[in-house]
Amino acid sequence: ETEIPTDHPRYQDLLTRHRIEAGVEKGITHLQGMHAEGRGSAFDYLLGEETIPSADEAERAAAAQLLLADHPVVSVNGNVAALVPGEVVDLASTVDAAIEINLFNRTPERMERIAAHLRDHGAEDVLGLDADARIPNLDHERSKVDADGIYEADVVVVPLEDGDRAEALSEMGKTEIVIDLNPLSRSPQVAAIPIVDNIVRAMPNVTEHGRALADADGATLREIVDSFDREAALAAAEDRIRSGDLAGE
Amino acid sequence: ETEIPTDHPRYQDLLTRHRIEAGVEKGITHLQGMHAEGRGSAFDYLLGEETIPSADEAERAAAAQLLLADHPVVSVNGNVAALVPGEVVDLASTVDAAIEINLFNRTPERMERIAAHLRDHGAEDVLGLDADARIPNLDHERSKVDADGIYEADVVVVPLEDGDRAEALSEMGKTEIVIDLNPLSRSPQVAAIPIVDNIVRAMPNVTEHGRALADADGATLREIVDSFDREAALAAAEDRIRSGDLAGE
Repeated sequence: ETEIPTDHPRYQDLLTRHRIEAGVEKGITHLQGMHAEGRGSAFDYLLGEETIPSADEAERAAAAQLLLADHPVVSVNGNVAALVPGEVVDLASTVDAAIEINLFNRTPERMERIAAHLRDHGAEDVLGLDADARIPNLDHERSKVDADGIYEADVVVVPLEDGDRAEALSEMGKTEIVIDLNPLSRSPQVAAIPIVDNIVRAMPNVTEHGRALADADGATLREIVDSFDREAALAAAEDRIRSGDLAGE
Repeated sequence: ETEIPTDHPRYQDLLTRHRIEAGVEKGITHLQGMHAEGRGSAFDYLLGEETIPSADEAERAAAAQLLLADHPVVSVNGNVAALVPGEVVDLASTVDAAIEINLFNRTPERMERIAAHLRDHGAEDVLGLDADARIPNLDHERSKVDADGIYEADVVVVPLEDGDRAEALSEMGKTEIVIDLNPLSRSPQVAAIPIVDNIVRAMPNVTEHGRALADADGATLREIVDSFDREAALAAAEDRIRSGDLAGE
């Protein structure tokens, strides 16, 4: 990472690409994660590679929602682990959330490697390895969750996930906070709080809002969540992709 | 590939992703090719995953330009070899062009594997292995070309290539036909004929136009090339990305 000059016009894009590549090489990220990251990078390019105002509002609402939650969980897959391991740990400790690994291509080796990677970045408890409960209406392997984790959660942060899983969690009645760069894909469409932003900017910004709101009372937090307009946020993101200035290339 | 049902709404996207993944596994495609393919797939999604009319015009102009050329060459990298090996061979034989391998991450093993892969798909001569000439103003490894191939070519098909290489070829005075899904990236911007289309649709369509124009006289071919408006084609592609209907997901 240190070889990429921080003033390079494509710094963030090169950095995320490098982290995913390193994740694939370490065996924590599936090869398909490289494809997903490439796909996301195109949407980020069209967004201007910045956190647009509606995304910042979504990130603040997400922080408030997490602080209000009884049992919040941050779901982690191979791309999330490769891109923002320390940021996930930071968010979880700020809003007192659990961290649970959930993989599309689940193997015991990848589960263990990701758990070790998260612990290297400061995680204490990492859920997902027990897999003693199931998400209804999802393929067998992909439905595996922990009974005291995602299965019991009231609020789940679901970054970079496929639509089937986001939909199945939504059908379980979870309040979902989705991070996804394509505002039109199913995951943000089914989310209570869709965050259309690059995860490398979004995750630390939710944490920052969480710190700023740490002492807010329940009524204040509730008001932030209730005043967030998901339809307007999705429309603003699509509008930016359609008409915004482009990032340099 | 036979496992993906052809009536699946994401058939083409799944197929290209599968081919690139297979290319990485076979050692002909670099891991970064998976990222590039993902990036392209997002632009294709915004284009509606179809050949828009301006792209079809560009593909026809490309066929005419190739038929007019004295020494046309189709440049092949790891993604091109993984995605459209048979289609490259078909185009080359239709317009009597040479095929030359040119890699961003050049290693003798990958060069040999790609040459074998192209031969498996019917290629007779595959250039690029001699590397006895250099493209000026490009890094040493990436500048390697064959003296009787790209170095001597008047018209070069440059699919899925980075901007530096496209620019260096343009500075050498080559007439470039670029295939790229982002109309704003540098490669199509420097091309005489920018084709903003998915290579899996573009390559066979150039060939089809080449067959249809096989008996056309020089004046007819020249008229097709001269009447092609590259600025209008780039603007039409950008407009489609900005305002078009979206492919299903």
